Amino acid sequence: MTNEDVFETIKTKEASLPERTAEQISRLIREQQLTSEDKLPSESELAELLHVGRGTIREGVKLLVARNVLEIRRGKGTYIAPNPGEISDPLGFAYCPDQLRLAMDLVEIRRQMEPWVARMAAEHADAEDIRQLRESCSVVEQDILSERDHSHNDVLFHVAIAKCTHNLVVPKLIPIITYAVKLFVSLTESRLRMETIVGHREILEAISDRDGQRAEKAMEQHIEHNRALLQEIVSKLKQEETDGP
Amino acid sequence: MTNEDVFETIKTKEASLPERTAEQISRLIREQQLTSEDKLPSESELAELLHVGRGTIREGVKLLVARNVLEIRRGKGTYIAPNPGEISDPLGFAYCPDQLRLAMDLVEIRRQMEPWVARMAAEHADAEDIRQLRESCSVVEQDILSERDHSHNDVLFHVAIAKCTHNLVVPKLIPIITYAVKLFVSLTESRLRMETIVGHREILEAISDRDGQRAEKAMEQHIEHNRALLQEIVSKLKQEETDGP
Repeated sequence: MTNEDVFETIKTKEASLPERTAEQISRLIREQQLTSEDKLPSESELAELLHVGRGTIREGVKLLVARNVLEIRRGKGTYIAPNPGEISDPLGFAYCPDQLRLAMDLVEIRRQMEPWVARMAAEHADAEDIRQLRESCSVVEQDILSERDHSHNDVLFHVAIAKCTHNLVVPKLIPIITYAVKLFVSLTESRLRMETIVGHREILEAISDRDGQRAEKAMEQHIEHNRALLQEIVSKLKQEETDGP
Repeated sequence: MTNEDVFETIKTKEASLPERTAEQISRLIREQQLTSEDKLPSESELAELLHVGRGTIREGVKLLVARNVLEIRRGKGTYIAPNPGEISDPLGFAYCPDQLRLAMDLVEIRRQMEPWVARMAAEHADAEDIRQLRESCSVVEQDILSERDHSHNDVLFHVAIAKCTHNLVVPKLIPIITYAVKLFVSLTESRLRMETIVGHREILEAISDRDGQRAEKAMEQHIEHNRALLQEIVSKLKQEETDGP
């Protein structure tokens, strides 16, 4: 068997049998509205139900695990994933050759989206949302004050704001548009640490006071600080590139 | 071997060998900036390079095919995918149990994002962008006038506008936030067909005249028409649900 032959057996473009089986299992999950509490039916049950061999079911399941529709829990079996079909870096940003330009383009989108999100958050947050937001804010502060990398928890703070909107999609968009936060924090060597603490606090208090306008304004300033510093750093780096060593 | 054992062999949470191999191949692609013109090195080359067996390479490749990082071209071998890592329905919207609420929440985001996108498009479009936008607009019109389902080409028109911005991310976000267009077109039974033709034309001409303000306004009206009708239909459907049969 040559390499080509081996790869041929995978073929997704023409929907191979495992691929079609994956699609059928996926439809089953959607139709029966299975959640992460639910265990996937056994291999043999699925094989009988879908009229294919157990080997094909196994291959189909692997595809769905790779796409984060299913997950394996050790010693427990195969379950529906908590956010089925949602994967990290869903737009393949890691493969973008110009990460600096990507970071700049993302911050433009954040500047447009997030002040609006903050306003909606202030308008729709309930008491439990505020409690979680306050907790998330304090986790970022602890990171910063302990000089740990706060980028992961920083993204989670912005997701917590997005959850206050009670819009189904906004919390899923935030991790996408904040993709470059990690790069940003490393580029700026945390020069904005105190501004971040103050900025986050202002946003938190405005949302907690249910003051949409103030929340929008505070988020605008927060993102604008980030954008301006990123712009400065990127210009400097591109200049150095032009000048040579 | 029990079902559990079989599924155990897939385990991704703890990063199995195929999973780690997939990550290494993926890193290779990023570091060498391989594009869709590039063929993946052969199974045996990769096996030697990464110090694992060919079977493991094969499993790792399958994972990357499932994630749309690699693709199999019939009779040609394994290549980098055109948009590596980018998959359709990346946020798993198909698994959302309340598709009507999803559609409403998406249209809120479109209303916030797309007028801004239209303005940016008018400000940054070059002659070739405008040519492609004009072509895309006419494809939608032909669909509508021939009473074909125009939802797919409608999304592509909005993507064509997004491309005019020259922002790397905006064109990738549009297919996400327009996910519900297909549902919308089927719910409205194309009641907005003429409004769509007129609305798209207005947006096109404003962008073509490089008039950012007019483009923003035209897009605002276009989305608002959609939102209002969707709201009406969803309210009616939810009312019927409450009333019972």
